[in-house]
Amino acid sequence: MIYSLEAGGKRIRPLLLFATLDAFGIDPKKGIQAACAIEMIHTYSLIHDDLPSMDNDDLRRGKPTNHKVFGDAIAILAGDALLTYSFEVINMLSENFTPPSAKMKLVIEMAKAAGAEGMVGGQVADMEGEGKALSLEELEYIHIHKTGKLLKFSVVAGAIMAQANASLLHNLSAFAHHLGLAFQIQDDILDLIGNQQLIGKPVGSDTVNQKSTYPQLLSLEGAKAALENQIKLSKDYLEKTDLNTTLLNEITDLVASRDH
Amino acid sequence: MIYSLEAGGKRIRPLLLFATLDAFGIDPKKGIQAACAIEMIHTYSLIHDDLPSMDNDDLRRGKPTNHKVFGDAIAILAGDALLTYSFEVINMLSENFTPPSAKMKLVIEMAKAAGAEGMVGGQVADMEGEGKALSLEELEYIHIHKTGKLLKFSVVAGAIMAQANASLLHNLSAFAHHLGLAFQIQDDILDLIGNQQLIGKPVGSDTVNQKSTYPQLLSLEGAKAALENQIKLSKDYLEKTDLNTTLLNEITDLVASRDH
Repeated sequence: MIYSLEAGGKRIRPLLLFATLDAFGIDPKKGIQAACAIEMIHTYSLIHDDLPSMDNDDLRRGKPTNHKVFGDAIAILAGDALLTYSFEVINMLSENFTPPSAKMKLVIEMAKAAGAEGMVGGQVADMEGEGKALSLEELEYIHIHKTGKLLKFSVVAGAIMAQANASLLHNLSAFAHHLGLAFQIQDDILDLIGNQQLIGKPVGSDTVNQKSTYPQLLSLEGAKAALENQIKLSKDYLEKTDLNTTLLNEITDLVASRDH
Repeated sequence: MIYSLEAGGKRIRPLLLFATLDAFGIDPKKGIQAACAIEMIHTYSLIHDDLPSMDNDDLRRGKPTNHKVFGDAIAILAGDALLTYSFEVINMLSENFTPPSAKMKLVIEMAKAAGAEGMVGGQVADMEGEGKALSLEELEYIHIHKTGKLLKFSVVAGAIMAQANASLLHNLSAFAHHLGLAFQIQDDILDLIGNQQLIGKPVGSDTVNQKSTYPQLLSLEGAKAALENQIKLSKDYLEKTDLNTTLLNEITDLVASRDH
């Protein structure tokens, strides 16, 4: 569990949660337990995705994958325990800041984002789509679920803790939705033209694994245009919130221009 | 997910939860969502335990194991999704019956029972103990964690929903602790002398997998005596509760005399 949690990574989900709290003028530190819980879920999903029966990856974040170090059984169990622990950790939020009713909402939304109708559902669709020529709609279904839902929850969690009203919640959700798609398009682009040293895993693995990607469906230029469009959409929704979105905007720019 | 949930099984955990509510004079149906959540966690653990990199079992409850039907990747993901969904489902308990503060307690205790300090921790110890000659203490550590903690939570969940006081919670916990050990001793005995048709999986698999068992450490007669002792201890704690424990007593007798 610790090996994979400490293997680094961009920590984009915690950053999004902290930046959302900041947008409401709330000390981001207050959300640390929720941020940790989300990063644990993300980490567990990477451990399981890397397994030989899934993507069979040897490298992650520049280090040997969990099962390469500890074996398949312990990798599966480390993932299981991280997922389970995330639901304990999110309940460690200070009672003053997050009353039981808010924690209940967080647990429900986190489970939805991570489960069969969210991240796991996306991974199933991804596995079943391997080796097939996917349509753009099918590709988006995969990404919206596999990475999008948990990214979105990172923002929504901040909004729940800040007791955001329905309209704010809607605009922040929409912001995160488009940011998630932008993130994934950039991921596909980097897999094609990125630097293995910076990404921490071999480039071209999508091609090797016969995975459908945005550049493959839209051409590299088309994927870059789609990325720009999603970034614009996400920023439009952010502007509608009338919050202090300096940090959220910075993260959005980071996603658009990231090289790893 | 549905294949393994509907594959049957003894449903001992739901039964324990329902019987605990009944002991408090509460309609057991009110706890159905918590019972489902616990059974989902139990089912996910079986799916993952049966995988080739773990116990490599082909049969479970008389049917092909999940990965034999759907492949390893989908089996891992079905387990992940069941675990995740359990935290959504337990929050579906009626708000009138279980306020957010009680749901929060249930989520925390369920995560502890199922996670690294509970069931998953026990499975790790079990994997690491394979092929080694374990002491009785090591064997008990495995069982208390691998099966005991979730069995105990089934009773504790009922007690939390019934707003039991600390002394009641203590006695019910102790009852479930000893019942869990009795359950596991009987499991080991059945693996040695049981009927494959009734158990739904091959007998003698512990010997094949070089697993330490109670009969192996204590002899068959010694294991039977230990079973009787645990049953007695569990009933003693039950009597201390002054609740209407008719159903809990019946389940205890069932565990003591079960043939599958």
